[in-house]
Amino acid sequence: MTDADRFLCEAIELAHANVEAGGRPFGAVVVGNGQVIATGVNETHKSDDVTDHAELLAIRAAVRAHGSEALRGSAVYASGHPCPMCLTAMRLAGVSEVVFAYSNEDGAPYSLSTAHIYDELRRPFSEHAMKIACVPARIGGREDLYAAWSRRQAK
Amino acid sequence: MTDADRFLCEAIELAHANVEAGGRPFGAVVVGNGQVIATGVNETHKSDDVTDHAELLAIRAAVRAHGSEALRGSAVYASGHPCPMCLTAMRLAGVSEVVFAYSNEDGAPYSLSTAHIYDELRRPFSEHAMKIACVPARIGGREDLYAAWSRRQAK
Repeated sequence: MTDADRFLCEAIELAHANVEAGGRPFGAVVVGNGQVIATGVNETHKSDDVTDHAELLAIRAAVRAHGSEALRGSAVYASGHPCPMCLTAMRLAGVSEVVFAYSNEDGAPYSLSTAHIYDELRRPFSEHAMKIACVPARIGGREDLYAAWSRRQAK
Repeated sequence: MTDADRFLCEAIELAHANVEAGGRPFGAVVVGNGQVIATGVNETHKSDDVTDHAELLAIRAAVRAHGSEALRGSAVYASGHPCPMCLTAMRLAGVSEVVFAYSNEDGAPYSLSTAHIYDELRRPFSEHAMKIACVPARIGGREDLYAAWSRRQAK
């Protein structure tokens, strides 16, 4: 059994345990320097918060336990195809490798695929399900927001 | 002043206050039925967690204060162009409208743009900065994960 298979099976076991506890079939482990440094399962059944995905919670747990630097160059093993929210969270965190066991194709018959959101993200905002617009509001008499941040950074 | 301008200015004021508190220049308000039901600012300076974006925290705060149903059909007004993580979180939460004041183009001179991540998401995984792969690991002798979830759902 390769390391990838071992960590994926750990993620799948977490997902099974989550199903048995009434949750959705998703688990994830974060691996740094060959060791599991954090895990997560989908907690939407407990929190009612649709952003409580296994991978996002695993990333948040890893940061809280080991600091953000521990994520740099880490790998995330997920039972299922990460959604774009989680994939971007990993990207922002400096994760270098993402491996998953169940594809969106595997999930589609169970409505467990986020392929439609990936498809949307390939298209201009005008073709998304949400109405998305830039309205360049500015507060009169205020220093520009980004310039104010930049000035403070330079101090 | 339109409602959009008013809510955007509220998000920008939150971002200014966050800058003054040592944080990054991002704020967001969630609006349901014409009222602000939750707000958020970027808290990465406090938590060291790169996923603590204003919009994601505003969504999480809205769910915790009002339940997930309050997000359905809501609008999010953000000071800056939402990143793909936050945009997907809004999509998953059932937000129907997203308005932002500062574009990625406004942010680019300050390295406050996530256009490069949007660009990546338009391309196949093989062209992303992270190595991303499906390895179809399965646990021998175990019921299929998604079938197990489906069976439990049917109960």
